[in-house]
Amino acid sequence: MKPVSFKDFEINKVFDFGYVTVSEQEIIDFAMFFDPLDFHIDKEAAQKSIFGGLVASGPHIFKIFHLTKWIPLFKNTVMGGLEVKWSFLKPIYADMKVFGKAVITDIKTNPERRHAAVKWHFDFTNEAGEFLQTIDMTVLHSMMK
Amino acid sequence: MKPVSFKDFEINKVFDFGYVTVSEQEIIDFAMFFDPLDFHIDKEAAQKSIFGGLVASGPHIFKIFHLTKWIPLFKNTVMGGLEVKWSFLKPIYADMKVFGKAVITDIKTNPERRHAAVKWHFDFTNEAGEFLQTIDMTVLHSMMK
Repeated sequence: MKPVSFKDFEINKVFDFGYVTVSEQEIIDFAMFFDPLDFHIDKEAAQKSIFGGLVASGPHIFKIFHLTKWIPLFKNTVMGGLEVKWSFLKPIYADMKVFGKAVITDIKTNPERRHAAVKWHFDFTNEAGEFLQTIDMTVLHSMMK
Repeated sequence: MKPVSFKDFEINKVFDFGYVTVSEQEIIDFAMFFDPLDFHIDKEAAQKSIFGGLVASGPHIFKIFHLTKWIPLFKNTVMGGLEVKWSFLKPIYADMKVFGKAVITDIKTNPERRHAAVKWHFDFTNEAGEFLQTIDMTVLHSMMK
């Protein structure tokens, strides 16, 4: 994937990241590092939880899309993160297809400083198109790259 | 640390997590896993960035407090995460003391279902007491544990 230059940023531009799945082992490994709660790391306990089975830790899917899709496209322009708002709407189970999209919802430029606060909206949906998570993230991008 | 039971949850109760520091190598290792942007993983590039040096990836400090302090205290009651709002206010550099506190700001009980939506406010401050990050997190907790 070719990095995207700031001049190609546009409000409402959608970046479709396709889908990912995570295996039970990947759910456990990620959660052991980040979020070792029973319903993320213990299959039996997870079956007795409200989820009825192992569920991915909140940031797991974002981590994959961020690392493999968003960063390769946008890293050259990123100057720093400002704010993130994250809603966990439905559980994400092993081997489920999770579709990811990002869209630019706002661009506030600071021409003097040559940077812009860009609002990114991510949504993660299942095959039925139901929302699993949404993320609104404000990032400072350089206008020079 | 002894896990905290739901009956000991109180609005405005502060949990002081002391402080942590992260080394340059820890900043690089975490960011390679989660957030491999130049100013997190490349010392020279970071010196030329707006930060003037390597800075910790957004979730790095939270990950440490969450894993080593919050989860051991509250994991027995946690049923799932609902929402997170995160503000990145100032950069966190290597070897800087970062003080962490969590406080319960709201408890909405659902007595029928025996669970409660609890709002947690985290703040991470430096030695001068300046805010580095704040996090507001809504978590579903069991009232039975």
